[in-house]
Amino acid sequence: MIIVMSPQATREQIDNVERKLSQLGYRTHPIYGDVKTVIGAIGEKRLEDTQSILSMPGVENIVPIMKPYKLASRELKQIQTIVKVGNCRIGDSKAVVIAGPCAIESYESYVSVAKQVKESGASILRGGAYKPRTSPYSFQGLEEDGLKIMAEAREITGLPIVTEVVDTRDVELVASYCDMLQIGARNMQNFRLLREAGASGKPVLLKRGLSATIEEWLMAAEYVISSGNQNVVLCERGIRTFETATRNTLDLSAVPVVKEFSHLPIIVDPSHSTGSWKYVSALSKGAIATGADGLIIEVHPDPNCAMCDGPQSLKPNKFSVLMQELGSVAIAVGRTI
Amino acid sequence: MIIVMSPQATREQIDNVERKLSQLGYRTHPIYGDVKTVIGAIGEKRLEDTQSILSMPGVENIVPIMKPYKLASRELKQIQTIVKVGNCRIGDSKAVVIAGPCAIESYESYVSVAKQVKESGASILRGGAYKPRTSPYSFQGLEEDGLKIMAEAREITGLPIVTEVVDTRDVELVASYCDMLQIGARNMQNFRLLREAGASGKPVLLKRGLSATIEEWLMAAEYVISSGNQNVVLCERGIRTFETATRNTLDLSAVPVVKEFSHLPIIVDPSHSTGSWKYVSALSKGAIATGADGLIIEVHPDPNCAMCDGPQSLKPNKFSVLMQELGSVAIAVGRTI
Amino acid sequence: MIIVMSPQATREQIDNVERKLSQLGYRTHPIYGDVKTVIGAIGEKRLEDTQSILSMPGVENIVPIMKPYKLASRELKQIQTIVKVGNCRIGDSKAVVIAGPCAIESYESYVSVAKQVKESGASILRGGAYKPRTSPYSFQGLEEDGLKIMAEAREITGLPIVTEVVDTRDVELVASYCDMLQIGARNMQNFRLLREAGASGKPVLLKRGLSATIEEWLMAAEYVISSGNQNVVLCERGIRTFETATRNTLDLSAVPVVKEFSHLPIIVDPSHSTGSWKYVSALSKGAIATGADGLIIEVHPDPNCAMCDGPQSLKPNKFSVLMQELGSVAIAVGRTI
Amino acid sequence: MIIVMSPQATREQIDNVERKLSQLGYRTHPIYGDVKTVIGAIGEKRLEDTQSILSMPGVENIVPIMKPYKLASRELKQIQTIVKVGNCRIGDSKAVVIAGPCAIESYESYVSVAKQVKESGASILRGGAYKPRTSPYSFQGLEEDGLKIMAEAREITGLPIVTEVVDTRDVELVASYCDMLQIGARNMQNFRLLREAGASGKPVLLKRGLSATIEEWLMAAEYVISSGNQNVVLCERGIRTFETATRNTLDLSAVPVVKEFSHLPIIVDPSHSTGSWKYVSALSKGAIATGADGLIIEVHPDPNCAMCDGPQSLKPNKFSVLMQELGSVAIAVGRTI
Repeated sequence: MIIVMSPQATREQIDNVERKLSQLGYRTHPIYGDVKTVIGAIGEKRLEDTQSILSMPGVENIVPIMKPYKLASRELKQIQTIVKVGNCRIGDSKAVVIAGPCAIESYESYVSVAKQVKESGASILRGGAYKPRTSPYSFQGLEEDGLKIMAEAREITGLPIVTEVVDTRDVELVASYCDMLQIGARNMQNFRLLREAGASGKPVLLKRGLSATIEEWLMAAEYVISSGNQNVVLCERGIRTFETATRNTLDLSAVPVVKEFSHLPIIVDPSHSTGSWKYVSALSKGAIATGADGLIIEVHPDPNCAMCDGPQSLKPNKFSVLMQELGSVAIAVGRTI
Repeated sequence: MIIVMSPQATREQIDNVERKLSQLGYRTHPIYGDVKTVIGAIGEKRLEDTQSILSMPGVENIVPIMKPYKLASRELKQIQTIVKVGNCRIGDSKAVVIAGPCAIESYESYVSVAKQVKESGASILRGGAYKPRTSPYSFQGLEEDGLKIMAEAREITGLPIVTEVVDTRDVELVASYCDMLQIGARNMQNFRLLREAGASGKPVLLKRGLSATIEEWLMAAEYVISSGNQNVVLCERGIRTFETATRNTLDLSAVPVVKEFSHLPIIVDPSHSTGSWKYVSALSKGAIATGADGLIIEVHPDPNCAMCDGPQSLKPNKFSVLMQELGSVAIAVGRTI
Repeated sequence: MIIVMSPQATREQIDNVERKLSQLGYRTHPIYGDVKTVIGAIGEKRLEDTQSILSMPGVENIVPIMKPYKLASRELKQIQTIVKVGNCRIGDSKAVVIAGPCAIESYESYVSVAKQVKESGASILRGGAYKPRTSPYSFQGLEEDGLKIMAEAREITGLPIVTEVVDTRDVELVASYCDMLQIGARNMQNFRLLREAGASGKPVLLKRGLSATIEEWLMAAEYVISSGNQNVVLCERGIRTFETATRNTLDLSAVPVVKEFSHLPIIVDPSHSTGSWKYVSALSKGAIATGADGLIIEVHPDPNCAMCDGPQSLKPNKFSVLMQELGSVAIAVGRTI
Repeated sequence: MIIVMSPQATREQIDNVERKLSQLGYRTHPIYGDVKTVIGAIGEKRLEDTQSILSMPGVENIVPIMKPYKLASRELKQIQTIVKVGNCRIGDSKAVVIAGPCAIESYESYVSVAKQVKESGASILRGGAYKPRTSPYSFQGLEEDGLKIMAEAREITGLPIVTEVVDTRDVELVASYCDMLQIGARNMQNFRLLREAGASGKPVLLKRGLSATIEEWLMAAEYVISSGNQNVVLCERGIRTFETATRNTLDLSAVPVVKEFSHLPIIVDPSHSTGSWKYVSALSKGAIATGADGLIIEVHPDPNCAMCDGPQSLKPNKFSVLMQELGSVAIAVGRTI
């Protein structure tokens, strides 16, 4: 890291910072500029050190040189990670489509839509049994009953299932039913939940927080990996900006940025990010062409009767058309779907 | 709510929407404009209905008229809520100052700073025993040992204590030690934690999420209140914007906005929002003059040895000077400190 | 529009609002809810009226129902606009690629890169003669000498040219040299410049402002069109968010949103939005797959000698490869490049 | 500046960067870390160099150490600048209040409100003769007729006048009438207008752009100062965020940040930032307590007949009450009003 001293820093203050850095095990290289002095510090990066030095007299700023994440970083592991969920491989040349309704509402409707999305080419089933809802008065999910319905749909379709977990107390139960755990955007920095999900041994689908930087997102992945679980798939789902035409702003630039800095696969959620089925098709194609390793798309047989997020759900027939179109786009960028 | 039909909506689509609204128990009032038809729907607002109608053919948009929160709203309760924490009353004419270090590091340092901030006029002690840290490699807090230290500091100073809880599994334990539970910014939409905190019966200090709108924040308060606990204090702690000169952008406008729409007290955190002790004094004064019901300020005896957030911590002597200055500002706006 | 009265509004206040609306030529339809009254107002939308009513006693909020733009709107003109620039048609089935260096630096380098991008399949040449630079000490462009170089490159390549105009006093001069005027992001709400550009009669390439909503962007287009010039091409170039891994956040959702609400063509700038040539290829493909009508890409023969924005410029050989890849993506979504 | 080389950078690439830096006149200091090499470069900062080096092979990032602005910086000039407008001194111990309506609508109404705000203690009159309006169909101002009315109000009240200029072609005319030129938020990076305003010799009130960082804002001030005009007053007027309860988010942290990094005075606009008169009083007091050198407040005799921004305008009697309250707050922080 680089410590930038203020123009008014005294020689004594500079020496104190160097001494402290040495005590912390850094080798130091001061550079005396015309206006400011900067000190290069070589050694293992520890965030706490950064903070304690930043509050020393005469220190203006600290510039980290190394990324704060290690296990999630391409600096450490250059080969692309492939995460296996059932028979499905996320991060490989075949782009993976995860599909299903926002919430599980009943056995019939879920199994019906599960069959249809499988028919259209989806590789993994999604569905919410525990719903984190903005309003305490909204439908909160079928909980374990929902998990059972998902498990039956897996039996019928042969597709693996992914569902969100929202409470550390539920991790074991949810992991016993499903093939992949989803950490939702609102829980991206629920660090205890990240640790439990990591410890469960199941692959983790880690959604980006609504206002998380890519670096913070990779730090959240670091929590999961450092709990012993390398199988993390990142999911870009839109960030919060001033624009109101869409629910959030889908940040497709995150795809090549994550590819540059991390070995983890990244998929894209065009449904939650836009909040409207009208934009799902265009942005699904855009995501695959940009290089995403897959998509997670909401499909509901009857969106205007959905208990949750109907407006952003595709009908099964529209999803089927989209899957065909995605096939062409995938081929154009050297992949399959 | 108002349902806006698209310019291309057919008469049949309009009728279908009206019929559905009637089934859901709304009275409907269509207004036929030159380009678009809108339908006024009167009845109890339920968010799920909004969603299901939004996905009906011909519907362009839905405009809610009522606020989504009720129990947190001034529409329901016009009298300002006063939350009692020990002998301290938050929301009353005396502005309340909560002070202490970011993390609890040792008995000696905590008790020492606790005495000093009491001496300077603080009303409640803060301190972190469970720290939600961005990096898995950072200090995560002393946990129960930290709670014990806080409890001893309460004995010595007579001041009530507030600390953050980060996991549903810890709520009971933390509530057994402290006088007020803090829900941190990253957990503002950890709905399970909100419910547990609400159910604990302890007053709750609810920090605004990094990218939460004021409406979502009040909805989070609604979760706590609807779990049977009216004693919620809101804490503005900065929102995430493009500006990088400060860690976050302190939104002091939230103070009069919350006062308009809610009966809950609101305090301000100038330490976390700015990330630098240099700006704490100016913004503390600004917050009190704007009408905040109090402040939560980080104070550490030796910021460049702090294990967490040293750069934003005031030294006890600077805090003492600030408290005197705040006294004058409080009087200027008809309060005390 | 819908006027929402506050819960405390008196009958007299409601009557006053209705009376004022009638005076302004609106037909009114009050709906008396259990808590709030809302008034539907039918008539030609005028923004000034909105403002004056919003400040009447008892009025809580005003909800516009009609979009504020007309000439730029699909409500008025449903057929997609095709803008002709020289022989090139923007908005048609062939996606148009505009390419060239950020700034014009010399005759030799510009003509050389112009020939190369033409060879690779670009349809229009770009280049900056007037550069709006953040620092007053940065290179500000060759001005009229740059325009002359561009005009010569047009002679040599046969490709039309587009360049930015930054001052109302320069519009006539710039329009006399080039085939299309660019309004930069920083000038998107320089309304005088919009009017002059509109009055010039030349097609206008209108970049989205760094923090402009799509609605404000279409209002800026409305300024140009209302000055008598229908030939407006919108250009998405990234918006400002908290994310720092890219210079701005490219908002590809804007492509389908603009297609829904406006008849104007929309192209995408992956160079300025990301600020790094490393991400240009991925996002160019993403933009075409999402449905953009074209791209504007920076190409420089020797980026590390560029006087401006070198880091985001592709070398001509990389651009050539990208053009081939874009051809496949375009075909996959039913277009050509 | 510090050049960060990528972990894969070869020795040859590192040498090339060093050689280029030397050619550009920098002294270089390489630091070889375990994973990455960084190169410290000492010399006069030139932004163009930064850009050209950033695109060299093996370079990962460049970290500027010096601020990009000089003339606006406290590094260069440590004494607080005081800007004189008529007899009024902005930046001195007396906080300055600028007041008046958003737009000038008629002689009678303007002179009437001018007298009232003077009576209440305002020091400078504001008013818009050229209005930059989002819609081309909105009232655009009385132009020179408005300037004449303002000049007459100055004669009558003895107060200096400030008004916005929106076009380089108008600067001379506007400067011939008024005592201070305002550059609006939408024109903060209209660099030609900044230069002309600087060259006019009149003091300049420079509003912060809607999405401008504090650094970019100071760079805009640098444009004015480098045109020979030191008399720049900064005006914080809210930035664009995701929050919709207020029109923009007033960033009061900007006050102490600007005070730290610049010698220029800074005032605050609570009217445009919030968009509602209801919040003006609270935030005016907050701004003064935070250390702002003044305020600019909209006052209109009859807000619900205002042609522009009525909802955010105070009535003269409310303004009068506010001025008294501000007096107490100013005293509490060691100033007067």
